Amino acid sequence: MSDSGKIIVRQCLAGTSLLLFSNAVFAADNAVEQVIELNLNTVWVAMAAALVFFMQAGFALLESGMSRSKNAVNVMMKNYMDVCLGSLLFWLVGYGIMFGENFSGFIGMSHFALADAEQWDYSLLLFQTMFAATAVTICSGAMAERTKYDAYLFAACGIIAVIYPVFGSWVWGGLYGGSGWLAELGFIDFAGSTVVHSIGAWCALAGIIVLVPRTGRFAREDGSARNIPGHNLSLVALGGFILWLGWFGFNGGSTLAASADIGLIILNTQLAAAAGAVGALLFSRVTRQPVLLTSTINGSLAGLVGVTAGCATMTPEFAALTGLVAGIISVYGAGWLERRGLDDVVGAIPVHGFSGAWGTIAAGMFMNDDLFNTSQILVQLVGVVSGFLWAFPLALLLFFLIDRTIGLRASTQHEQQGLDYTEHDEVGYPEFNQHVTFHKKS
Amino acid sequence: MSDSGKIIVRQCLAGTSLLLFSNAVFAADNAVEQVIELNLNTVWVAMAAALVFFMQAGFALLESGMSRSKNAVNVMMKNYMDVCLGSLLFWLVGYGIMFGENFSGFIGMSHFALADAEQWDYSLLLFQTMFAATAVTICSGAMAERTKYDAYLFAACGIIAVIYPVFGSWVWGGLYGGSGWLAELGFIDFAGSTVVHSIGAWCALAGIIVLVPRTGRFAREDGSARNIPGHNLSLVALGGFILWLGWFGFNGGSTLAASADIGLIILNTQLAAAAGAVGALLFSRVTRQPVLLTSTINGSLAGLVGVTAGCATMTPEFAALTGLVAGIISVYGAGWLERRGLDDVVGAIPVHGFSGAWGTIAAGMFMNDDLFNTSQILVQLVGVVSGFLWAFPLALLLFFLIDRTIGLRASTQHEQQGLDYTEHDEVGYPEFNQHVTFHKKS
Amino acid sequence: MSDSGKIIVRQCLAGTSLLLFSNAVFAADNAVEQVIELNLNTVWVAMAAALVFFMQAGFALLESGMSRSKNAVNVMMKNYMDVCLGSLLFWLVGYGIMFGENFSGFIGMSHFALADAEQWDYSLLLFQTMFAATAVTICSGAMAERTKYDAYLFAACGIIAVIYPVFGSWVWGGLYGGSGWLAELGFIDFAGSTVVHSIGAWCALAGIIVLVPRTGRFAREDGSARNIPGHNLSLVALGGFILWLGWFGFNGGSTLAASADIGLIILNTQLAAAAGAVGALLFSRVTRQPVLLTSTINGSLAGLVGVTAGCATMTPEFAALTGLVAGIISVYGAGWLERRGLDDVVGAIPVHGFSGAWGTIAAGMFMNDDLFNTSQILVQLVGVVSGFLWAFPLALLLFFLIDRTIGLRASTQHEQQGLDYTEHDEVGYPEFNQHVTFHKKS
Repeated sequence: MSDSGKIIVRQCLAGTSLLLFSNAVFAADNAVEQVIELNLNTVWVAMAAALVFFMQAGFALLESGMSRSKNAVNVMMKNYMDVCLGSLLFWLVGYGIMFGENFSGFIGMSHFALADAEQWDYSLLLFQTMFAATAVTICSGAMAERTKYDAYLFAACGIIAVIYPVFGSWVWGGLYGGSGWLAELGFIDFAGSTVVHSIGAWCALAGIIVLVPRTGRFAREDGSARNIPGHNLSLVALGGFILWLGWFGFNGGSTLAASADIGLIILNTQLAAAAGAVGALLFSRVTRQPVLLTSTINGSLAGLVGVTAGCATMTPEFAALTGLVAGIISVYGAGWLERRGLDDVVGAIPVHGFSGAWGTIAAGMFMNDDLFNTSQILVQLVGVVSGFLWAFPLALLLFFLIDRTIGLRASTQHEQQGLDYTEHDEVGYPEFNQHVTFHKKS
Repeated sequence: MSDSGKIIVRQCLAGTSLLLFSNAVFAADNAVEQVIELNLNTVWVAMAAALVFFMQAGFALLESGMSRSKNAVNVMMKNYMDVCLGSLLFWLVGYGIMFGENFSGFIGMSHFALADAEQWDYSLLLFQTMFAATAVTICSGAMAERTKYDAYLFAACGIIAVIYPVFGSWVWGGLYGGSGWLAELGFIDFAGSTVVHSIGAWCALAGIIVLVPRTGRFAREDGSARNIPGHNLSLVALGGFILWLGWFGFNGGSTLAASADIGLIILNTQLAAAAGAVGALLFSRVTRQPVLLTSTINGSLAGLVGVTAGCATMTPEFAALTGLVAGIISVYGAGWLERRGLDDVVGAIPVHGFSGAWGTIAAGMFMNDDLFNTSQILVQLVGVVSGFLWAFPLALLLFFLIDRTIGLRASTQHEQQGLDYTEHDEVGYPEFNQHVTFHKKS
Repeated sequence: MSDSGKIIVRQCLAGTSLLLFSNAVFAADNAVEQVIELNLNTVWVAMAAALVFFMQAGFALLESGMSRSKNAVNVMMKNYMDVCLGSLLFWLVGYGIMFGENFSGFIGMSHFALADAEQWDYSLLLFQTMFAATAVTICSGAMAERTKYDAYLFAACGIIAVIYPVFGSWVWGGLYGGSGWLAELGFIDFAGSTVVHSIGAWCALAGIIVLVPRTGRFAREDGSARNIPGHNLSLVALGGFILWLGWFGFNGGSTLAASADIGLIILNTQLAAAAGAVGALLFSRVTRQPVLLTSTINGSLAGLVGVTAGCATMTPEFAALTGLVAGIISVYGAGWLERRGLDDVVGAIPVHGFSGAWGTIAAGMFMNDDLFNTSQILVQLVGVVSGFLWAFPLALLLFFLIDRTIGLRASTQHEQQGLDYTEHDEVGYPEFNQHVTFHKKS
């Protein structure tokens, strides 16, 4: 790896990758070169932000396709409003908490509504907005088909404005002064296996615990799981492709600067995704489960989540290994949750939570020039555990309070009619004759 | 804002943003820096053109999803051929009219078929081709489900080759000598709220007046409106996401140069879209209408259209405000048109026409360093009104002539069978049992 | 055309466009400029790779939409696993064969698993991986609805690891020493009309010969063709748009460096696609066939395939002409295959094979500064013929061996039930009532 690559690695180790840009851009010799570099970095971050934005469409399709058609509009509306409310709230509140002056190490407290912004801050806010929207959208999928629309939007606001940015400030914070306490420890999470994906998944876990499963998901007699097939697997596959595409921006853009290191980062991203699908496929074959499209796609997403923490500091071999294991975890984890009577409609918790935790630890195990460094692995564990201990109880409280006040769960009657009809006065496919199927779990 | 930002702002005020590049690129000190800048600008405009191209897919999905399934192929075919015919015609004719030597201020007259092109002209033509295709595609949505295919293609050619580029030459023209008269006045329309979106919408308005509404859209007895639901709201939502994505290229690329100002421009784009959806949602709630997916998505698109004129010259606060108002206008405007017995299938006229006009005026009201400058607002009004007075009567004449010659509207029998069957010998979903529903307007 | 443009043209003529980067980047005067150039080139190739990746989604939608709904999951799964297996195999094996040290001119033999990689190699591998996945995916479409899943995956591995990269090494090989024999002859194939598209199509041709047609595609009595309509033309149209979008990366990215020449390349790409659709439309009208959505989209894809070889060395006029002819070929070729009793579900062979061969020859005929150079045309013919002679017999052998061992074709019973049910334990649209239609060919 080149010198500049090593600098990136070291800065990631110090958890200060977000500060990289300010160092790199002024390496230029003269004013014109500095302007060119700033322009180039802006172009890169803008394109990356566009790609990460598009992941919202991927999530919407994946979640909608894995739900029943009577809830297609509801799922789409939740995803669409996630971005809309998220963009406004993260601009007004979240960004300041996450990246503002952070001398305590636990919370940022400046730059709300982008006060005192310079030119570069606009690009950075936009890019980070897309990350915040990703975190909250993870909940939407797990909690699909039974959550009241207003209650969901309320919870989404709480996650975007508080739960997500506070934890973020521990790892990536202090952009304008100070530093997060996990960054100070040397915690590595390049693009957010823990900061974005696991945090979203732990909130989702709290959500599905408060919600309890969909009617019919577990048999009333013996609690045995029943499969509720999604209504449109073509949309699921398209969603998978779009998410994979967006991840080039998610990981590649997290350099926050146009850099030759992007090559390694996105190659690792690609290999981990590919290996994740292969891992899911092999594990399904070995355990004699059918190789489902949904689990194959979730396997690749798990690979992507897994490599997100360490994609800048691993060699391709270890990126592929990280993805392979993540793919296995996603299939095993889905069964594990199901056996505990938890109903995660799209498998968001194994994909984003379990694989995110694995990937964060893997980033410590497979550092390019320092394999299996025990103290680094311990730091990674501290980060993973503190993410869970912060997000899960707080989200549990949030969902519990919402449930006790305006109510989190739709009534059984509404659930049976479908939320499109009861909450949105619109149905997804009004011209097509539909029926609902339940399959006994094979 | 930095000095280079101020230069952009001033050039936008002078309506010469298209000339920016030629000034900026040669700011470089030496030959190598100049080559790097040209390469970087080419990369940015190429990526932006790709994103704007993809908006055609967004329009196709949005329009198809909001139509009945019996016209799904017809809508797709119109959108696909818009791009195909538009690309050829804009290369051969439209570009010369819009950007060629323009000493009268009213029309360009050189560079047809890109004669005498230099390297940079190729990128510029491609980028501008996508804008021309966007303008014409706006008509397609409003006029869906009842327009003869050949007649539509004929009208599309007239808009791309004459109506759109002539008005464009007034605002953005004179790239190779001379200047448009609206540019001379100081009219601000950074990326085309009026030039692209309103012009397309006024043509659409003319089209639906000549066409008259779809059979069944208004009750025969009392003229009361009836809702004809679209056949696939999942595709509508995906279309909305794709259009939003494409707008990063539409607005960001209109710098025509890689520039740090792209950060502010696309952040404003994002916030206006988000606020537009929130505006549509709040207005629907306050007026006790159901919060529909279709109106939420149209609200965000209205926000995008609205901010297009002023995204380079507003602060984020005013961009969000512009979007919020545009979202409200899109819902109110849709009802306003309906009460006048006009049948705009996808709500293209409120979204692109009314919100485009609002956004163009807002660009004058909310200039970064000169809020509520009365003379600027007057100039903006002149631009908005002259756009309407140019495009609407001419389009009315065009559609009228087509109707009297080859016929614009499909026969009632064809309309009832669906244009896929009668015009294209193909149906969109041959395996699925379908029925057509009419809902009484609640 | 500028001097740097001329250099590109000459290098393409010498078949060494892949080496361009190493020459260009070190044109910079000083170390900082070199770093900026490397960063900029990385950004461009990364974005282009992302776009080419997305073409996989386009292929998946196009192929799935043109198949019956009972095989929707199967088609998606084949496309998804193409990318996954392809990424791993091309990294481990294919890249080394295609680009490694190649002193024989017939095969590369270094850089397996990216041994001894430098920073730039990561970007290059990623970009080339997407090309390999494209080649194999072409087979998937032609062979849809009747191929066993495992057998297909096995064949895909053979194509990605052997058939594709060996031929590639003849044209683009020798990146790390040596050169391919076709490159030495002066064969022009800028972005792979032959290397990627025709090679994929000749494998597909072998596949459908071994497979024989779908049950019911040709009448048992008289062998007359019957049309089996695709289940979702909205997805086909979306797939067409996505493929077109991805082609900006496919052709534009094949510069392998940020360059002002990208403007001409992607403008040519756009015009050829547009002209291809117009060519298909006009040919259909003239021959009194219905103008189908599927043939219009295939026409534009044929235009894209056709211009891929010569997009860097043609003027826009000839690019449009190349596309127009390719569009005609795609419609004529589809009928030609059908009359020979060959069942190519999506028209992959006329689009990628016949139009790719035409485009490769057109690249020789329409060179910018040397029109109709006979010796160049002969060289192009040698390349086209040697591509066929390499890929077709080898693929025939591969499919034959698979058929005699594990079996290539699904049983008639499985074919009738649909491969989703029999191979994947999942169906694409479980809630919708479906029926299967056969139409007599009109």
